[in-house]
Amino acid sequence: MRIFSNPEQAGHNPRDEFFRGQRVPCFENPTRARYVLEALAARGVPVGSPTHDSTAVLAEVHAPRYLAFLQDAWRQWLALDGANADVQPFPSVWPVRTLRSDVEPANFIARLGLYAMDNGSPLAAGTWAAAKGGADAAASAAHALLSGERAAFCATRPPGHHAGPDFMGGYCFLNNAAVAAQTLRQGGAARVAVLDVDYHHGNGTQAIFYRRADVLFVSLHGDPRTEYPFYLGHADETGEGEGAGFNLNLPLPAGTRPDAWFDALDAACQRVAAHGADALVVSLGLDTFGADPIAGFGLQADDFPRLGARLQRLALPTVMVLEGGYASAELGDNACHVLEGFEA
Amino acid sequence: MRIFSNPEQAGHNPRDEFFRGQRVPCFENPTRARYVLEALAARGVPVGSPTHDSTAVLAEVHAPRYLAFLQDAWRQWLALDGANADVQPFPSVWPVRTLRSDVEPANFIARLGLYAMDNGSPLAAGTWAAAKGGADAAASAAHALLSGERAAFCATRPPGHHAGPDFMGGYCFLNNAAVAAQTLRQGGAARVAVLDVDYHHGNGTQAIFYRRADVLFVSLHGDPRTEYPFYLGHADETGEGEGAGFNLNLPLPAGTRPDAWFDALDAACQRVAAHGADALVVSLGLDTFGADPIAGFGLQADDFPRLGARLQRLALPTVMVLEGGYASAELGDNACHVLEGFEA
Repeated sequence: MRIFSNPEQAGHNPRDEFFRGQRVPCFENPTRARYVLEALAARGVPVGSPTHDSTAVLAEVHAPRYLAFLQDAWRQWLALDGANADVQPFPSVWPVRTLRSDVEPANFIARLGLYAMDNGSPLAAGTWAAAKGGADAAASAAHALLSGERAAFCATRPPGHHAGPDFMGGYCFLNNAAVAAQTLRQGGAARVAVLDVDYHHGNGTQAIFYRRADVLFVSLHGDPRTEYPFYLGHADETGEGEGAGFNLNLPLPAGTRPDAWFDALDAACQRVAAHGADALVVSLGLDTFGADPIAGFGLQADDFPRLGARLQRLALPTVMVLEGGYASAELGDNACHVLEGFEA
Repeated sequence: MRIFSNPEQAGHNPRDEFFRGQRVPCFENPTRARYVLEALAARGVPVGSPTHDSTAVLAEVHAPRYLAFLQDAWRQWLALDGANADVQPFPSVWPVRTLRSDVEPANFIARLGLYAMDNGSPLAAGTWAAAKGGADAAASAAHALLSGERAAFCATRPPGHHAGPDFMGGYCFLNNAAVAAQTLRQGGAARVAVLDVDYHHGNGTQAIFYRRADVLFVSLHGDPRTEYPFYLGHADETGEGEGAGFNLNLPLPAGTRPDAWFDALDAACQRVAAHGADALVVSLGLDTFGADPIAGFGLQADDFPRLGARLQRLALPTVMVLEGGYASAELGDNACHVLEGFEA
């Protein structure tokens, strides 16, 4: 299995986020990547830098004006006030129902609100470079498959699956899973499946492919009635237009135990198999772990090799992209256990 | 002229808001009402309490589920944690494009985000009672007109014109101007005009009446490209469906001087006159005052009687509802100057 890192990830290191209304230190921080890379190194697994540029494919899964804003946002923030280097910008107004999204305001904070679904996705000086590095890793992993590799893993951050066509959210800026899927499609895979096993619904990935039949999206996740992202991930979301029938959500109540979770995983894998996919992208969130501080499933350490083995049984060229997972000390071992289960 | 106060207003007294991304003490606070009431008292103007209940008309201008949330929100917040009495709840996630607004999450903060367009409209223990008292005053002012009064003024807070069909925003929870207009319609006025002279576009009022021909909405305000509410208030918003042609926005650049502002007011009044309205509702924001801390027009003290005189020339039964205006020390005199100009 090819492993890709994101050399720029540590530059995305904001101090605080808002979590359920309160300002708290960021759960999503460089320590997460360090734990994963250390666990890989301890096992002697080689890790490579990205080999491909995601620029062209990013423009196919995200809106150009969103990419333009994200790439230049920190410079614009500093241009407003030199002291802003030590101030975190947060959205304070946003366009819900009846408000327009088609006209970009000149005001910076209003533009930040236009392009965000929460104030839990803070910008920092290195955000664009880190997010772009993660997207490059995802594109590189897809290219590895197109070159004949059976599998690849992106040991990267920030995660991507909450980032929608034109907004950031849930610590995510660029949708790495969508980049991998779209790269596979362009490289010749006629059908691609994205399987999202993060605790939180991959609303961004769903939205990007919701009207497409060529990319199936399947997710098992905490019920959005009580869990982030709250406004998407229900079972009645099955796709629209040409994409009708190509979206499957399996919401599970907080507190779901491993056996029930693996039953849902089986249902998800059966749908993936029925799609006749040429390649699989896995949004590999590890916040299903029982000790995770912001999630509510009960997976234990030995459930992660079982997850890897189940993915392996799909017998598809597979890109795995690290999404969430915040119980940092165990994060690296849990990630490695998935890979080991896959390769066993 | 009949003047209505809002006996419950002081109970809406949150400590902080977020203003352009930073947490600051609330600009919209009980001192504002005190200044206006003191200025009225100093002139010997009698002020009365509301005479009518707005409950029925509120259900016609706001979504029932939004009203249900707002009425019960503080109790629900306290029920989560007794210590929440000293904690301000703020939205931290919200449903922009591709996210759903039709399913109400169980999580409190997610519901707050569903029903808010910003985190500058904080809830407090007395928010519902205060907002409801203001809506009752607006309904009462409309009933005064229906009983033959030439004019009425609601010396109330919180303001209302940013509150949309199903969301709070811009210090606003219930749309008092919409309550007054709808009450007038129900009471027999075939056509009503709402003229919004606040510095900030009345996005909520526009949205509530955007598909209706019976209630004209006309607003002059700071250009939303740079000014709150940022996502509505452009000149190309002219109404939809049956309401096509019954919405007029006159955005003006920050820094607009009084002469140019009065030119726009003339254009607005001409549109109101052409509507053939039976009654007029004025969203009387006084943040057009040059010394206002969060607005950018340059009106001076002697411009306010001129505003009142221009409104009087429309020769319509008129409800004026206090909206914004944050230069508190002058707020009361400026309000009285409008009324004096109207009655001269």
